[in-house]
Amino acid sequence: MTGATSRPLVSALVGGEAVGAIFSNEAELAALLQVEAALAAAEAQAGLIEADAASAIAETCDNFRPDWPGLAEGLAKDGVIVPELVRQLRAAVGAPHAAAVHKGATSQDIIDTALMLRLKHAAAIFVNGLGTLAALLRQLKTRHGAVPLMAHTRMQRAVPFTVADKIDTWLAPLERQTAALRPINSDLFVVQLGGPVGTRASFNGMGDAIARAMADMLGLSDAPCWHSQRDRIAVFASWLSVTSGIFGKIGQDIALMAQNEVGDVGIVGGGSSAMPHKSNPVQAELLVALARLNAGLLGTLNQALVHENERSGAAWTLEWLVLPQMTVATAAGMEKATTLFEGLHFLPGEPDS
Amino acid sequence: MTGATSRPLVSALVGGEAVGAIFSNEAELAALLQVEAALAAAEAQAGLIEADAASAIAETCDNFRPDWPGLAEGLAKDGVIVPELVRQLRAAVGAPHAAAVHKGATSQDIIDTALMLRLKHAAAIFVNGLGTLAALLRQLKTRHGAVPLMAHTRMQRAVPFTVADKIDTWLAPLERQTAALRPINSDLFVVQLGGPVGTRASFNGMGDAIARAMADMLGLSDAPCWHSQRDRIAVFASWLSVTSGIFGKIGQDIALMAQNEVGDVGIVGGGSSAMPHKSNPVQAELLVALARLNAGLLGTLNQALVHENERSGAAWTLEWLVLPQMTVATAAGMEKATTLFEGLHFLPGEPDS
Amino acid sequence: MTGATSRPLVSALVGGEAVGAIFSNEAELAALLQVEAALAAAEAQAGLIEADAASAIAETCDNFRPDWPGLAEGLAKDGVIVPELVRQLRAAVGAPHAAAVHKGATSQDIIDTALMLRLKHAAAIFVNGLGTLAALLRQLKTRHGAVPLMAHTRMQRAVPFTVADKIDTWLAPLERQTAALRPINSDLFVVQLGGPVGTRASFNGMGDAIARAMADMLGLSDAPCWHSQRDRIAVFASWLSVTSGIFGKIGQDIALMAQNEVGDVGIVGGGSSAMPHKSNPVQAELLVALARLNAGLLGTLNQALVHENERSGAAWTLEWLVLPQMTVATAAGMEKATTLFEGLHFLPGEPDS
Amino acid sequence: MTGATSRPLVSALVGGEAVGAIFSNEAELAALLQVEAALAAAEAQAGLIEADAASAIAETCDNFRPDWPGLAEGLAKDGVIVPELVRQLRAAVGAPHAAAVHKGATSQDIIDTALMLRLKHAAAIFVNGLGTLAALLRQLKTRHGAVPLMAHTRMQRAVPFTVADKIDTWLAPLERQTAALRPINSDLFVVQLGGPVGTRASFNGMGDAIARAMADMLGLSDAPCWHSQRDRIAVFASWLSVTSGIFGKIGQDIALMAQNEVGDVGIVGGGSSAMPHKSNPVQAELLVALARLNAGLLGTLNQALVHENERSGAAWTLEWLVLPQMTVATAAGMEKATTLFEGLHFLPGEPDS
Repeated sequence: MTGATSRPLVSALVGGEAVGAIFSNEAELAALLQVEAALAAAEAQAGLIEADAASAIAETCDNFRPDWPGLAEGLAKDGVIVPELVRQLRAAVGAPHAAAVHKGATSQDIIDTALMLRLKHAAAIFVNGLGTLAALLRQLKTRHGAVPLMAHTRMQRAVPFTVADKIDTWLAPLERQTAALRPINSDLFVVQLGGPVGTRASFNGMGDAIARAMADMLGLSDAPCWHSQRDRIAVFASWLSVTSGIFGKIGQDIALMAQNEVGDVGIVGGGSSAMPHKSNPVQAELLVALARLNAGLLGTLNQALVHENERSGAAWTLEWLVLPQMTVATAAGMEKATTLFEGLHFLPGEPDS
Repeated sequence: MTGATSRPLVSALVGGEAVGAIFSNEAELAALLQVEAALAAAEAQAGLIEADAASAIAETCDNFRPDWPGLAEGLAKDGVIVPELVRQLRAAVGAPHAAAVHKGATSQDIIDTALMLRLKHAAAIFVNGLGTLAALLRQLKTRHGAVPLMAHTRMQRAVPFTVADKIDTWLAPLERQTAALRPINSDLFVVQLGGPVGTRASFNGMGDAIARAMADMLGLSDAPCWHSQRDRIAVFASWLSVTSGIFGKIGQDIALMAQNEVGDVGIVGGGSSAMPHKSNPVQAELLVALARLNAGLLGTLNQALVHENERSGAAWTLEWLVLPQMTVATAAGMEKATTLFEGLHFLPGEPDS
Repeated sequence: MTGATSRPLVSALVGGEAVGAIFSNEAELAALLQVEAALAAAEAQAGLIEADAASAIAETCDNFRPDWPGLAEGLAKDGVIVPELVRQLRAAVGAPHAAAVHKGATSQDIIDTALMLRLKHAAAIFVNGLGTLAALLRQLKTRHGAVPLMAHTRMQRAVPFTVADKIDTWLAPLERQTAALRPINSDLFVVQLGGPVGTRASFNGMGDAIARAMADMLGLSDAPCWHSQRDRIAVFASWLSVTSGIFGKIGQDIALMAQNEVGDVGIVGGGSSAMPHKSNPVQAELLVALARLNAGLLGTLNQALVHENERSGAAWTLEWLVLPQMTVATAAGMEKATTLFEGLHFLPGEPDS
Repeated sequence: MTGATSRPLVSALVGGEAVGAIFSNEAELAALLQVEAALAAAEAQAGLIEADAASAIAETCDNFRPDWPGLAEGLAKDGVIVPELVRQLRAAVGAPHAAAVHKGATSQDIIDTALMLRLKHAAAIFVNGLGTLAALLRQLKTRHGAVPLMAHTRMQRAVPFTVADKIDTWLAPLERQTAALRPINSDLFVVQLGGPVGTRASFNGMGDAIARAMADMLGLSDAPCWHSQRDRIAVFASWLSVTSGIFGKIGQDIALMAQNEVGDVGIVGGGSSAMPHKSNPVQAELLVALARLNAGLLGTLNQALVHENERSGAAWTLEWLVLPQMTVATAAGMEKATTLFEGLHFLPGEPDS
């Protein structure tokens, strides 16, 4: 079996590859190594480890070749990848600096900070993509805004309005979601540093300085330890679900407008194995499916807010199973909405009745 | 059957009465009348209706005695209460101003604006309640902060920390949620005015001015018509679920700390019908239940983001079935958390083993 | 405020009154008393208490007038209503038989068995209602089955079929759900008896006989103690959600067929406050809303399967907050579907375009 | 990047490989080909196509080498893989029998029947696995059943019982779930055949016979066309979620029993990167996470019951995104529960306090 087929075929339908890559094993490992290197550099600045140790760790992280099966085995055994990764890293750094690796930190410091790095990356993709989508909608509005449309309320004809009016109902919430990414970028994507139970006691009184330095190096915001406080994760997940929901509303609208009997829009449709005359609104339907998926996943992710004590293996693992797919589903919706609008035209004439 | 028993008994367990009252029939009707009166006043300012008409409408709204069974019947028939309410209101206003009632507006203008009025009221209750709760936590921290506690990660003893460290993990997210209510108050609680399909065309070009004036009168923010864009509802619902989730984490922590074998806290517990020696952490468990309820309800509410066309009866009705209970459940959690902390004491000594 | 307005107005829209009554305070109390009386009778048969005691308890249960505020207070304090109810019952029974009340039982024995009694009652209502609905569909099929319809796949015209074909897609799953109630009735609606921790040790070796006798008296099936095993609850909740989902599919179909541009069916529609020409498919939309509500609630209820130890206050309370509304929502859908079909006619002619 | 790293590392933690393989691209393609071949064979029996055509199709299906990128592209364009697969198959079969491929069928006939084949395969794995698990529990009961344990209700010590009592609460629901697979196997895993809109009109009156023959060949049950009736899917998904929920209850129990302060069980625990003394109940926590995931996913899947018209692209796609992960998560839980019990021992002595 070739690599080409190892990803589920349904991915070809759904999309979201660029954001999906952020959650690949390679990207996860790269982020974990980036955090371990930043931790060492910050600890060297603070005098907690030697500068030479930090350099050695940085170099090792840059050139690290993991024992993947060992990582998988360690993850299965420990419930978290870091203990085995640190073991491999220490072996690679070797004497005399091995012990300086991961100094004072706990697994969650590394994993949560590495997650934040990747969510910030995803957010940048969302900013770009939403900008492109909004521009596309504004173009459509400029070109076709004056075309008359029949508005529909409660599944019935209401009174006429225009394509511009319709596009406004799609554009305004997307602009609000784009604006909402700004405070998310500054307040939500923060460094996580706490040590074993979140008190930073393992950093000899320099924990705050180390966290601040790590945040600077990694392009994240500084914050007190938050590892058992998962509200930021839920806030970002809500952003994902709301964004998907906006796409879902657009998809549902277009699927309704593309009905043969209504005939308000033309789309680039999909074919049928049994009915050659069909032109199915595949992308529009997919937007609806992704919106419903992400709505449900948000409800599941928020179960993980009940994060008991100073670290919940159950709640944390639940996040891992849900948040990546929510992020990818949102990105997939953004891509499909873009493709959908690229192929959309408004039909001022008569429906195909 | 007396009124005392007409509310489900389980409400006595759950609580949230003050916020629950916001969703009573009377409060809903009062808010609808307030919006109709503000609409008339704003339309009189804009010259769309006569000042006398606005006065007559205001007076009628102030003294309105509804035909409740008629409202219920109208709601069942029309799927929305406003058509019958407007009919009753017009009859009450009488000639010559009856036609000025609800001029240019659609049901959703009234209902969504009235909802926003009530959510804003609920948010004020949340600000107060969260302030009280935070103050309580700060007091506990002052009094007992130095008491040593064993931290637990992944359900196992980790290393010692203190009561202050523990309280910080409860307090910090509550402070973030309180801060998050500020932009919600200004950006989210907005007037809704659109007319039949959201274009404000039915207000003779004065729709924007009327919306602005209504917002001023009602203490809401101004906004373009948003009636098919439900992102604000979902954002507020996410706030509710995250807040409940924070309470749920607190409840889970306290239930674990109150285990006889752990014995880190003493609580005011509930009794058992079979085991007189028991002291059950009823309030703590309730916080967990409410967190899980609201998490699931958020996932359900976000299904309503797929709000098709210019008004979705299905999606809008789904909001009505979910959002009030989410708001009440959050308030209930806030109350129970307060009671729980009022009765909480930390036990430095030995567990009951 | 009169009783007429004390129930949320939205209930007038949603319906489900007959099943809703099963979850009233009065119905719950009646069921709890019925179980306490059956327990006493069964214990007298087994010789665990005196026959006179059982008679006294039966008579007291028959004529019991609760102190409702006391029950509410007890529920809030203990997290469960039974300790206070037993206290009141014992006081009412008085010497010498007070101690024979609730002998050997725990709160959950009474509450879960009383729940089963009421779910069985609800199931009987469902059997009747589904029978009526199926008969209505068969009539429609007989009368209008030959009317040609255009089938639609993926929101596009496919090829023609008939009203009979369409009705079959609604009828077949309803028939399967009706059939699925049979094993539910025999396997799922079972007595719960366990004593404090589920071992029946408190019944002096006669627990099995007592449970069997109680089951006989109450019209339930016999079963070993299951109080921490909530699979039966989840199985019934799945039945509710699937049934609602079938109604939701019907509602969505009819809302689509009733579009002015499609014009396949005529319905008894609702009016609009702004657009007198509208005829809104209120009942069809409500079926969709209820289906989505119950789907989400099922996901929430199944969180309660994680019922820790020998009794989880958190998980059990979550069931109380979810299962009654699921049952009522299903009944409401059944009613609305019936009304919808009573007012439905198929239009062989041209759409209103 | 090698194949070894192409699967998300988190899979190593979660497991479920054997069932996961059922949803691989290769397994999906194999099932689709099996169905196309059975369709052709059944159509040849019925005289709808020539026996030579069926032989040629069978041989081609046996040796078919797909153009994977073409399939992915077709899936993305058409929203379903079958149109492109049929195109490739017809090309491979060549003249004169190409047109006999997929005769009268629609994409959904092939995909839903192929899904049923694979779910039946999964169910067989579940029967075996649950049998193993139950045997393991019975062994534990035999060996350690007499060991005294403290029962806990509402997170507090209740009264003593035994390991046998505890195991019974885990075993009984697993036995019920195993029994519930029997009717699922006979009633739920059925052939799907309908043609374009579900009427079997495209099979020249022989649709019923063809469906029956296909069912026989494929080891499925016969059924009328059900392609827009998704109740069976939801019923199976409920089985998955309930089974996961039972594992989740077990996991939660063991995580609580394995607390150092309680010390009722010893487990094979995971290590920590910061605290060498820890032995984390990784598998137990994972069972909880998987139960919560599947509960939420069930709520999401049941949204797809609102399957509009004669085929809903949106609802069907949503099933594809949810059902495979539910099935794999359930299998993963079964594996982890087995491993957990293999390493479990009960500790009659004192907790580690």
